[in-house]
Amino acid sequence: MSLMLQEIAQQPDVLEGIAAVNASALARLKNHLVDRQIDLIVLVARGSSDNAALFGRYLLELTTGIPVSLAAPSVVTLYDVELRLRNALVIGVSQSGQGSDINFVLESAGKSGALTLAFTNDADSKIVEVADESFLIHAGPEVSVAATKTYTGQMMLFYLIAESLGAKPFEYRQITDFAHQALELSDEIRELAERYVFMENCVVLGRGLNYGNAFELGLKLMETCYVVAERFSSADFQHGPLALIERRFPVILYSPQGVTRPGDMELLDTLSSLHADTLVITNDVGIARASSRAINLCDKIPELLTPIPFIIPAQLFAAHLSQAKGLDADKPRTIRKVTQTL
Amino acid sequence: MSLMLQEIAQQPDVLEGIAAVNASALARLKNHLVDRQIDLIVLVARGSSDNAALFGRYLLELTTGIPVSLAAPSVVTLYDVELRLRNALVIGVSQSGQGSDINFVLESAGKSGALTLAFTNDADSKIVEVADESFLIHAGPEVSVAATKTYTGQMMLFYLIAESLGAKPFEYRQITDFAHQALELSDEIRELAERYVFMENCVVLGRGLNYGNAFELGLKLMETCYVVAERFSSADFQHGPLALIERRFPVILYSPQGVTRPGDMELLDTLSSLHADTLVITNDVGIARASSRAINLCDKIPELLTPIPFIIPAQLFAAHLSQAKGLDADKPRTIRKVTQTL
Repeated sequence: MSLMLQEIAQQPDVLEGIAAVNASALARLKNHLVDRQIDLIVLVARGSSDNAALFGRYLLELTTGIPVSLAAPSVVTLYDVELRLRNALVIGVSQSGQGSDINFVLESAGKSGALTLAFTNDADSKIVEVADESFLIHAGPEVSVAATKTYTGQMMLFYLIAESLGAKPFEYRQITDFAHQALELSDEIRELAERYVFMENCVVLGRGLNYGNAFELGLKLMETCYVVAERFSSADFQHGPLALIERRFPVILYSPQGVTRPGDMELLDTLSSLHADTLVITNDVGIARASSRAINLCDKIPELLTPIPFIIPAQLFAAHLSQAKGLDADKPRTIRKVTQTL
Repeated sequence: MSLMLQEIAQQPDVLEGIAAVNASALARLKNHLVDRQIDLIVLVARGSSDNAALFGRYLLELTTGIPVSLAAPSVVTLYDVELRLRNALVIGVSQSGQGSDINFVLESAGKSGALTLAFTNDADSKIVEVADESFLIHAGPEVSVAATKTYTGQMMLFYLIAESLGAKPFEYRQITDFAHQALELSDEIRELAERYVFMENCVVLGRGLNYGNAFELGLKLMETCYVVAERFSSADFQHGPLALIERRFPVILYSPQGVTRPGDMELLDTLSSLHADTLVITNDVGIARASSRAINLCDKIPELLTPIPFIIPAQLFAAHLSQAKGLDADKPRTIRKVTQTL
């Protein structure tokens, strides 16, 4: 069994421990926030962490009303600009805590007067020194190059931060339970993956809370299966890229019950008329019925809690597809676990 | 000759006229800004306009230091959240001015107390009613489905807005002159495009000021050539997707003289060791020499002014490649000029 599959299976345990491990950091954060006005949240990340940040962006805007910006690191690292961030909360997200660009942007934000936080899996890493306050994923070492448990761990931290910023309390116990249930799909997904063994390119779509998951599944398919996986918001996709679609072109769509459903139904209709091959990750019977293939999750998951359980079958899909293609998901060619860019 | 090629050729004239057409709107904007503090700029757009906004994001952050966020329209249109935007400047970018999602987000921002601007090519469109102030691309009707002259027109408007927000004056005359020169590459690019006639997928990369251009070239290749064109920042690309690259995989890279050069040289080195097929759009001799093929622009273009002249050869490449593939760039399958999403 690949390390990737083992680490995927560890996720409920990791998720369960995160709130307790970070209790004192959360208490300190609440103190920081008492005498500070936060008008803007800036998220800084690369790779899978950046996809977790994409989720965090939606979660924070939806539950706090504070606008969120995904940082463009080069503005600081290459163009040497100090942004005006006096009333901002800036969060650096990095599994390793060693990304020099992320740390550099956090440091610069701190100098501009921003409150800076770090999400990392390594309590001894550089990012912990740089940030005003650090939150730990506490996932244990992640050895597979493909991030899985640190991705969902970062997502969990965004729920905790949203709560500190005024969101209504979340049902953390439910997230862990739904994650457990999602893992039970593994055998079914291993069989399903066989159908895609000759897939060379595809499109992965999602919107809103599951937009980051679409990007993360695309990244996993690129890293572990060498599939050219294009990623779009289901809305942006219709502003041009839709022209790509021809008979049997594979489209993978995140489509939970909730506000994105009506648009997704229309889109599936269009895709069906173009004879595309659609695979949905859903907990909605109607959406599943409108697609070529479906991965079905529990229909009791509230929309706000879908993102963590919904990435798990996608991780399983990539891991099993990698194996079916005869590849080594833990050691993709060319890339390494920690990438340094400026 | 396709309408797309005709409209590409009209760009210097469009660019030349924009400042004069918008002189009084710019004067009114300056008045608006006298008694207002702008702590955040939010850009709202879809499709090619969204790629112009990607450029606008870098230009505005680099030259004004004000943080910029690219809006996630669904937060407002689907999840019904009113973001806290009291000290924000919100700019809706839409060729047609008819995108109901863009207009809805602008309207909501106005209610939260933001100052709202519109960039559009249609003075009689809905967006002009919605926004506090409107700026016109004044490009005449754009008939080809693939946006070209309205894309660069929107970019020009971002220069004008940056100046109103405190950026040092730009040399507009130079932009138009360099755009003229770039058009002279058309014959050379028609020949070059023949080499790519069987290309089915590729990766398009860029960073900083030319990041939006990489997205725009990718979109043009998808819309007009049906090439699966994946788009990344040259830095993000190395955090995973690099694993895709194998012998002769086509990589197109934006690489002007300037701050991105050292990183680009390293990347070209890596790509060369993987035997990738690289095409650079550059004005740097060293970068051109390190690549399989190069489109060479004038080496006198200052980095800050590269984005408009640098998109022109890419537009020409897509238009000629479409023709070489026997397709109709003006009427891509499935899509239309104006797309409505929520």
